[in-house]
Amino acid sequence: MVNIELVSSLSQKTETKIILVVVDGIGGLPHPCVGRTALEEANIPNLDRLAAVSSCGLVEPVALGITPGSGPSHLALFGYDPLRYDIGRGVLEALGVGLELQPSDVAARGNFCTVDDSSGVITDRRAGRIPTEENRRLVEMLRSINVEGVEVILESGKFHRFVALFRGQGLSGELYDTDPQHVGEKPKDAAPRTPDAAYTANLVNQWLEKVREVLKNEYPANMVLLRGFAGLPDIPGMSQVFKLTPAAISGYPMYRGLARLVGMEILETGPSLKDEVETLQAQFDNYDFFYLHVKDTDSSGEDGDFKRKVEVIEEFDALLPSILGLKPDVLIVTGDHSTPAKMKAHSWHPVPFLIHSEWVRPLRVEEFSEAACAKGDLGVFPSLGTMPLALAHGLKLGKFGA
Amino acid sequence: MVNIELVSSLSQKTETKIILVVVDGIGGLPHPCVGRTALEEANIPNLDRLAAVSSCGLVEPVALGITPGSGPSHLALFGYDPLRYDIGRGVLEALGVGLELQPSDVAARGNFCTVDDSSGVITDRRAGRIPTEENRRLVEMLRSINVEGVEVILESGKFHRFVALFRGQGLSGELYDTDPQHVGEKPKDAAPRTPDAAYTANLVNQWLEKVREVLKNEYPANMVLLRGFAGLPDIPGMSQVFKLTPAAISGYPMYRGLARLVGMEILETGPSLKDEVETLQAQFDNYDFFYLHVKDTDSSGEDGDFKRKVEVIEEFDALLPSILGLKPDVLIVTGDHSTPAKMKAHSWHPVPFLIHSEWVRPLRVEEFSEAACAKGDLGVFPSLGTMPLALAHGLKLGKFGA
Repeated sequence: MVNIELVSSLSQKTETKIILVVVDGIGGLPHPCVGRTALEEANIPNLDRLAAVSSCGLVEPVALGITPGSGPSHLALFGYDPLRYDIGRGVLEALGVGLELQPSDVAARGNFCTVDDSSGVITDRRAGRIPTEENRRLVEMLRSINVEGVEVILESGKFHRFVALFRGQGLSGELYDTDPQHVGEKPKDAAPRTPDAAYTANLVNQWLEKVREVLKNEYPANMVLLRGFAGLPDIPGMSQVFKLTPAAISGYPMYRGLARLVGMEILETGPSLKDEVETLQAQFDNYDFFYLHVKDTDSSGEDGDFKRKVEVIEEFDALLPSILGLKPDVLIVTGDHSTPAKMKAHSWHPVPFLIHSEWVRPLRVEEFSEAACAKGDLGVFPSLGTMPLALAHGLKLGKFGA
Repeated sequence: MVNIELVSSLSQKTETKIILVVVDGIGGLPHPCVGRTALEEANIPNLDRLAAVSSCGLVEPVALGITPGSGPSHLALFGYDPLRYDIGRGVLEALGVGLELQPSDVAARGNFCTVDDSSGVITDRRAGRIPTEENRRLVEMLRSINVEGVEVILESGKFHRFVALFRGQGLSGELYDTDPQHVGEKPKDAAPRTPDAAYTANLVNQWLEKVREVLKNEYPANMVLLRGFAGLPDIPGMSQVFKLTPAAISGYPMYRGLARLVGMEILETGPSLKDEVETLQAQFDNYDFFYLHVKDTDSSGEDGDFKRKVEVIEEFDALLPSILGLKPDVLIVTGDHSTPAKMKAHSWHPVPFLIHSEWVRPLRVEEFSEAACAKGDLGVFPSLGTMPLALAHGLKLGKFGA
């Protein structure tokens, strides 16, 4: 059982330093070719040695049997119940393309689509998946549109996709999709879910009317559809909740965005894992909590590239001594979810977890793997328990009661 | 942690098939004669082999230390929180004798009792445990009673016990027992717990008045007591909650009734375990979820017949290859609770659990037993997690968040 309110109420500022390494999608399944998981297959002497002197277990990302996206799974690791704090799809997409959201912004996922000239009904919800360069040209055209009362910030994605950010006073994300999800229907107007959102709906519809005009000769991409309208969730920062001065090190916009959502400082870093560790070394004196993100274990898992996943794990293992050399008071190595190469997708399987500090009671597991962690002293526990364990081992939690 | 609302919201219809085998009361304790549990004592090569390539653990039926009846323990396995969905005793008894309940029915457990002719106070709450044949004769007499506005359906149980089902418009199960629980007091009138139930109380009392008249010369069974009044709980079906087309295979009325409560189709089957497996084979194409119930492990446990319990487990093991031959996408073997022969009763001890599918990450336990499952990858988890795991491994759950 995890009680974040209690943890928050007991948390106190100290000098100790915590590093949370999230090896994205690190958990796996035995791969058909070798009968072992990527973690088992990888040659990781440093992680194996560390696991033997750490508390180990398996974290359940959200709940039994639930496969999480990156948003909910990261929130849980950061100590925020993902069932309580809902990050809308539009917001996640905006974070993913590196847009910085302000509290009153409303974000939405956009598609270029094709509508029939005469009837106005949708004939292709993805406009034939136009090339990304074409997308960029069209988005540049749309940037010229002005609607009084709102600034519309646009960022191209791949093919037909883009992100739209509506910025202004008094906006609400409580809007229904304009995408009817079916061809043969007309794009819908943006309609408010709540009376509060009527003002925003009106502004969005003014923008859409101008978009139709601007794109009318751009067949097949002669209209847009918007989905997943969302404003920033109201999340208290980690400094407020846990009395930390937290920093994030990640090469990918979405994870930087998620970290920013919970009030972490985003550190500049290079694209490689080595760059990230160097950033950690350079900034180690300046913060007391570091989130360091390893992305390619997840990407390789999603690609079904077992060999690459093994290599990324080995690459991280080789950098582990540099991290340990900083002598953090608490070091956690885990993942946000499993991404078995066999499934080419995120999965629900619990994720290996180790926590190292002076104050652990290790069971001396033989290696860092799914099977070894399943036999660890921590058992299977919710990943929302990561922050309470981190703070406790950092001696950052006062006693409950007398 | 289990979150059924979330599971429900993510569930989707697919072609995959799930078989949930509930070996009733399968968990046990080391038996004094052999120092092993029935599962450990049984020769079960098929289950042992299956466990080695399955995810294993122990399920906690309801909560730590709680010994459940069959109703709550089955509800939990079916994905329904037994603390939320209360199946009244009257309803369970009615299901147990094979009565099919309609939504507005009110069921109660009945006892024949003895009252003193002159004072009217109860002298024996069980009427000297009259023979079952005598019970049948008396119930037949009671069937002749007519009360306007309600049909009273009666079914004899053993000795002094029977079930009464009140059928009519606008009935409520919110009635207090008429059984004062003590001799030396008069049978109580049926009294309403809520204003809504006053109408029902009046009908029941009219019936009881006529019962007293009909039985007045039938000493020692010259009156009845009613307990556990209950209406059908309002439970959404498994097709609605989990998008399944579920079917139940059980030779016993109570389990068929419990399955019907959650919207399963009840398949005709014979009395033996072999009959049940043949029904499963014959109907395998027609549903995507099967609940198959093995009863005699529980009955033998309740009888304290360790040897018989071992035999039933071995009998099931011999039929396992026929079930595996159907190539279900997910096969779960577990129990609803433990029934140690040593205790001659249900118990609170967690129950061995295995789930087999292409997507498991087995720890290669050595056998299917309480001790081996305690070392399994799933650890100890609430039996309410059975359905989330079943659906996840059947790839029937979409991703949570992005």
